[in-house]
Amino acid sequence: MTHATLHSSTASTATREAYELLLTHTREGGLVGGVGSILGWDQETMMPPGGVDYRGKQFALLARIGHQMATNPRVDGWLAVCEGDRAFMEAGSAESAQIRELRRDFTHATRLPETLVTELAEVSSKAQHEWALARKASDFARFRPWLEKLVTLNRSKAACLGIPAGGEPWDALADLYEPECTAASVTQVFVPLREQLRTLLRDLAAGSKKPSNRFNETAMPIDAQMAFARKVVQAIGFDFQRGRLDTSTHPFCGGSHCNDVRMTTRFTETCVNDALGSTMHEAGHGMYEQGLPASAIGTPLGTAVSLGIHESQSRLWENQVGRSMAFWTWCEPHLKNTFGAAAHSFTLEDLYGAANIVEPGFIRVDADEATYNMHVMVRFELERLLMDGSLDPCDLPREWNRRYQEYLGVTVPDDRRGCLQDVHWSMGAFGYFPTYTLGTLYSAQFFDAAKRAIPGLEEGFAKGEFKPLLDWLNREIHTHGRRYRPAELCERVTGSRLSSECYLRYLSGKLRPLYGA
Amino acid sequence: MTHATLHSSTASTATREAYELLLTHTREGGLVGGVGSILGWDQETMMPPGGVDYRGKQFALLARIGHQMATNPRVDGWLAVCEGDRAFMEAGSAESAQIRELRRDFTHATRLPETLVTELAEVSSKAQHEWALARKASDFARFRPWLEKLVTLNRSKAACLGIPAGGEPWDALADLYEPECTAASVTQVFVPLREQLRTLLRDLAAGSKKPSNRFNETAMPIDAQMAFARKVVQAIGFDFQRGRLDTSTHPFCGGSHCNDVRMTTRFTETCVNDALGSTMHEAGHGMYEQGLPASAIGTPLGTAVSLGIHESQSRLWENQVGRSMAFWTWCEPHLKNTFGAAAHSFTLEDLYGAANIVEPGFIRVDADEATYNMHVMVRFELERLLMDGSLDPCDLPREWNRRYQEYLGVTVPDDRRGCLQDVHWSMGAFGYFPTYTLGTLYSAQFFDAAKRAIPGLEEGFAKGEFKPLLDWLNREIHTHGRRYRPAELCERVTGSRLSSECYLRYLSGKLRPLYGA
Repeated sequence: MTHATLHSSTASTATREAYELLLTHTREGGLVGGVGSILGWDQETMMPPGGVDYRGKQFALLARIGHQMATNPRVDGWLAVCEGDRAFMEAGSAESAQIRELRRDFTHATRLPETLVTELAEVSSKAQHEWALARKASDFARFRPWLEKLVTLNRSKAACLGIPAGGEPWDALADLYEPECTAASVTQVFVPLREQLRTLLRDLAAGSKKPSNRFNETAMPIDAQMAFARKVVQAIGFDFQRGRLDTSTHPFCGGSHCNDVRMTTRFTETCVNDALGSTMHEAGHGMYEQGLPASAIGTPLGTAVSLGIHESQSRLWENQVGRSMAFWTWCEPHLKNTFGAAAHSFTLEDLYGAANIVEPGFIRVDADEATYNMHVMVRFELERLLMDGSLDPCDLPREWNRRYQEYLGVTVPDDRRGCLQDVHWSMGAFGYFPTYTLGTLYSAQFFDAAKRAIPGLEEGFAKGEFKPLLDWLNREIHTHGRRYRPAELCERVTGSRLSSECYLRYLSGKLRPLYGA
Repeated sequence: MTHATLHSSTASTATREAYELLLTHTREGGLVGGVGSILGWDQETMMPPGGVDYRGKQFALLARIGHQMATNPRVDGWLAVCEGDRAFMEAGSAESAQIRELRRDFTHATRLPETLVTELAEVSSKAQHEWALARKASDFARFRPWLEKLVTLNRSKAACLGIPAGGEPWDALADLYEPECTAASVTQVFVPLREQLRTLLRDLAAGSKKPSNRFNETAMPIDAQMAFARKVVQAIGFDFQRGRLDTSTHPFCGGSHCNDVRMTTRFTETCVNDALGSTMHEAGHGMYEQGLPASAIGTPLGTAVSLGIHESQSRLWENQVGRSMAFWTWCEPHLKNTFGAAAHSFTLEDLYGAANIVEPGFIRVDADEATYNMHVMVRFELERLLMDGSLDPCDLPREWNRRYQEYLGVTVPDDRRGCLQDVHWSMGAFGYFPTYTLGTLYSAQFFDAAKRAIPGLEEGFAKGEFKPLLDWLNREIHTHGRRYRPAELCERVTGSRLSSECYLRYLSGKLRPLYGA
């Protein structure tokens, strides 16, 4: 079935016509978005430094053109025709989902003035560049004026979008990334999760043993690491005919559509697991994008449902797969083959243990599974305060460092390894961070469902059989695009609402034996 | 002085206002063009195969948006206000040149219907991809339907642009690449040039000696060749802070403006001179782009004047510099340093000789300076016939091969090394090829003028001093953008009109001693 064409035979001719015009118009908007996405990838991976200023102007123009298309009053008219046709809007149909999501997009777009959209695009392009320089120099003062601009612009954005009754500015922004997500609902999940993670961390620290970190401290040539990472993500199912892998300061996954996915990774000489984890993570995102239906490119049903669900895919491949004994059973000979003598002294137990070291640190993207969510919680609290105006950007480093001491027991040595480490705020993205933890919880819950559905799933990994899992994810999640909202999708796929239960059981079940706790 | 802002103090307020609005609008059009150019570079260097179809649609949309901006009726109004202000249009002023060139662009744009512009963009994006596959398989039949489409579309384009009185369809297209260029004027230059080159080639073939080709047959690792090519183009003045060098099937130079120039090259294991020549050639284009004034980005005075003048810059660095004894005197130790033992057996004379081998062949981009123009003449004749309808695309291979036999005395073995070798027609570019020879003639005439203006110019090359030449080219040519038309620019820079005299003298003076002829 092609999602993008009309199948409902009972709809009137006027509805059919409105729907086709609406989708054609939407696909054109998708073309503009895809162009912007390729330029964004280019800026992070390829563009020479001289291109920065003008690239900001290019983004601003594309944002303006995209916004003009998204707010075209004809969209409202086409939507109204479809919405008024009861037969067409049959509950649960693909077409009614397109209309529901297009109405959501139109409402969001029309609430934002063109000047704000254009300014945000231009400022965040430049701010990303300034952030990269400030981070390199560990110079928060350099980045501060840009952060201030972005906070002000995002507070305006929240006000334009409309703060929900009983809600706060952060909610208006978060809803763009994770439909129906609010600070209150996030807090409800985060507070008990934090307590249970603290207990787990305390127990692990007091455990009777500790896996060896030696593999993570063994230098391996970058070229060989790149070859190895490519081999692994190809084996798990990333399609290089429809995507690329490059390097960038902050790994990400972009691209313009399911047949042109651009992911990046990064390498440090001393830690293969760093590159491997990053690459499998981004490949998880990439395989979600590649699994969206080509027939619906540029329309809601060809688009990922939310950042939380996106993150569930990346973390599932990075963690549930990439840090499992079954995966390392398959991986070990390939690793030894690629890295030769330097890798031969490690046993399977060494490799599996090294992939599961728990050690509180400063850097989110380097964090293990048990401490990772603490990093996310710090950022969530801070961006919530920045958005409601109770935290002045100039106080960010102090508040950041204080929380790291409290939640993770570590003293942040400098802003490079502190509040300057992540790209998101410089991209103008506030309300985004919690989706990392929501995704982590979804990943465990989805993986549980996959294990129930596919007998011998993990035994297959040990033989390099990853296709059954990818096929299942394609069928259960990817192919639907935005047909179901995240909460509904979760219930359909797993039979229950999102909770941290599966995640804590998975984590505890894996880490306690490794640490004798 | 900034070209893009108004300085004429005698102009009326209305004129000032119209001029500023016109330039703001023009710069926005330039942003769209720059985005398209980066996507074009991406398609040739980075894009995975899966991206082809959608990339074609992206180009088509950008072409439509650009065309809508270029044909906006307000442009006509703004132009008319400026043109009507006699004080403002003072002959020779920067502003009057902007207006003259913007009028030219507006006239061209408004003559082309939007549907044709969009279709050409989409078809040529796909045709390029098909051409690459057809070339690889040496399968003309595969490319033929695309060539037919492009010929038909370009004949329509010529008809829309308007064929000049006494002229032919080819003229209308050529004028876009080389203002004021006609098939008749090209023929006037080409016919005698062909005769003189034939005489030279005959004499060289009968000469008493021949430089050794051994260096061109010595395999060198591709990585080292890339490092070497980068070193050389950096030394001659290409600024990597404002540009990149990558690899592609067909080397080219693109990018979005003077501060973000994207050039490509290619490597064969057996011939360093192949990569070196290609890279210096593209760097010549790149340094022209980098030398355009940043203050005028997106406007005519920030844009190259013509493809012929562009080609003069690439060929000047590739040939007059890159194949000179002085250049090789500087280059020899760097070459030996990069390639180690494999390069040590070659003397300076060997290297200089190997850079100047004359040998008729099938491939234009591999051709030496003496046979190069014969390749261009073949293509000029064929595209002229395709455009006036007297050559059916299906007869192209036969006509191509016949001419190669006649002009160069070689039997084309297959279409891969015949009519499928060049990308231009697949890009939808007809009327473009002669600019390669015009550029070659300009290059020799400019280099003569540079030698007169800069004492010890070539002696400097031997010491690695290339900056005096680049500074002179910046000042005399690059910085003017489209301020002067090609013929006028040539007279200003060299004191005389374009002729093949300098070129033939230069070629004869270098090659006859090498061949004892």
